[in-house]
Amino acid sequence: MKVKIAIDAMGGDFGPEPIVKGTIAALKHYRFEPILVGKKEEILPLIPGGFKDKISIVEAEDVIAMSDAATDALKRKESSIYKAVDLVRNGEADGVVSAGHSGATMSVATLRLGRLKHVLRPALVTLMPNKNKKRTVLLDVGANVDCKPEHLAQFAVMGSCYAHDMWAITLPTVGLLANGEEETKGNDVTKGAFQKLRGMEGFVGNVEGRDIFNGSVDVVVCDGFIGNLVLKSSEGVASTITHLIKDYIRKSPIAITGALLMRKVFKLLKKELDYAEVGGAPLIGVKGCTIVSHGKSNSKAIKNAIKQAIDFVDTGVNVHIERALDATAK
Amino acid sequence: MKVKIAIDAMGGDFGPEPIVKGTIAALKHYRFEPILVGKKEEILPLIPGGFKDKISIVEAEDVIAMSDAATDALKRKESSIYKAVDLVRNGEADGVVSAGHSGATMSVATLRLGRLKHVLRPALVTLMPNKNKKRTVLLDVGANVDCKPEHLAQFAVMGSCYAHDMWAITLPTVGLLANGEEETKGNDVTKGAFQKLRGMEGFVGNVEGRDIFNGSVDVVVCDGFIGNLVLKSSEGVASTITHLIKDYIRKSPIAITGALLMRKVFKLLKKELDYAEVGGAPLIGVKGCTIVSHGKSNSKAIKNAIKQAIDFVDTGVNVHIERALDATAK
Repeated sequence: MKVKIAIDAMGGDFGPEPIVKGTIAALKHYRFEPILVGKKEEILPLIPGGFKDKISIVEAEDVIAMSDAATDALKRKESSIYKAVDLVRNGEADGVVSAGHSGATMSVATLRLGRLKHVLRPALVTLMPNKNKKRTVLLDVGANVDCKPEHLAQFAVMGSCYAHDMWAITLPTVGLLANGEEETKGNDVTKGAFQKLRGMEGFVGNVEGRDIFNGSVDVVVCDGFIGNLVLKSSEGVASTITHLIKDYIRKSPIAITGALLMRKVFKLLKKELDYAEVGGAPLIGVKGCTIVSHGKSNSKAIKNAIKQAIDFVDTGVNVHIERALDATAK
Repeated sequence: MKVKIAIDAMGGDFGPEPIVKGTIAALKHYRFEPILVGKKEEILPLIPGGFKDKISIVEAEDVIAMSDAATDALKRKESSIYKAVDLVRNGEADGVVSAGHSGATMSVATLRLGRLKHVLRPALVTLMPNKNKKRTVLLDVGANVDCKPEHLAQFAVMGSCYAHDMWAITLPTVGLLANGEEETKGNDVTKGAFQKLRGMEGFVGNVEGRDIFNGSVDVVVCDGFIGNLVLKSSEGVASTITHLIKDYIRKSPIAITGALLMRKVFKLLKKELDYAEVGGAPLIGVKGCTIVSHGKSNSKAIKNAIKQAIDFVDTGVNVHIERALDATAK
């Protein structure tokens, strides 16, 4: 049986076009059944003839805008995100992908789908590029601003299950993000989490900011406030480096020639750092499967977000998480 | 009268050599009197004949190693950092530069020199490279792990005074680092700080991680735990990008040629991102002047750290901070 993925066709910054395109690109590569949720009259013209019978559409007349409050999302039952999530809730889909309002997506998913057994708080997982041309699993990157030690400890367990199932790492190494490697380092919350994680298989203790990017550890755990800052700062650094390089190149004809010869290198680098290669951040700890994509997602990002959703469902990572948390709860 | 700078000659990872070299380089450019503190028999042979009468040496037989606990530093009165700080305490020097154990430097400086009037907690200031080829003032980057709103509010005032005096910015803009620009964003501590900062001249509200690097704000305020993570993550991103570029270049003769033609661009970029261009982080809020340099400082970093110390003393930023905090205390 094919995995069914509900896709919020309306929420992204660029309207339904990149989302429908990404869905079609995914259909060419992966086995799954897409259900596009949104305004039929906007979606239908974007689907080429040969794909019309491969894509279902569920009508939703309302769209939650980026400027709307996330708290309103639960009241807007006719919105594309609400209806897409409810397809998972009702068993009509296995997973949902949305490039819409991320706060709304997270709150609707958490409250309509419910948390997995034992999970105190779901967390948003992102995959950061690293030196080994692999990805480092970083969580939480925004679902929970103020965390307690027990939340971080659960993120460690969930992140480890995710890395194991999605990235086929036998025993993922897990580090706690802190201001130094020594056990005495950390703030009050991470110090408390450290005590709870002592003895967890794969736990390597505290890791530092640079360890997210040097490939020394598979999973890095932090609260959502810090995860957001690390994510945005890293994007800022990469963007500033690119800006400076372009600026210096512009001023020298020799450097322009050099840059042309290095075109392939810059292309490879861009691909390695490109958010679209990952496509979306799974909201982990919630029943079913929810992939939160960037509002600015292009069709490639949507295609890869759908792939993430398919793999998430296929690997059964949720069962693994419940079992792992069950073991730590005893 | 020349500014007198006490320099811990022993604490760095590479021993006294880069420190003495950096001091001599500074002497060639700036007007000041250096006092090197450490083992005379190691320092003396490193000073060329022509400089022997321009540099004083104060003997210190003990060195605090990077692996030593910062808490022991106050008991080790014969250590180079303790003696260097005490030269400032006793009025024999105006400022101190140390590339030694930063925890030890911060605690000895804070406790032996004392805090400025009204200052609850001193903060470590760093200068981050940005798109405008200027520097963004970021504090705290490691002096205070767990902060309260009133601490962050003081960091904002101190950072603003620093940017005004050291960078000649008439009215520095100050942002509070958070997970979104809206006033509703932030964790419990930053939300509290936001309320205290409302109405402060130059306060622009919340800023995001990317704003540290895009030059949109002069001063960015956060707690020392987060500042450390942002600092180390940024270094990690820059280092990973460099690593990937080198790796891709190596695999293509065309790209190698391109890289040769782009040599100047990479040199400019390196200079822009180079820590040594800044040289050290001032510990702000403490009487006198303390510049904390990286353990791995080369002679260029030491030279620039000394320049920072001279400017810090010359501008009288401490008087400005006390006056500004006095105004907010009323």
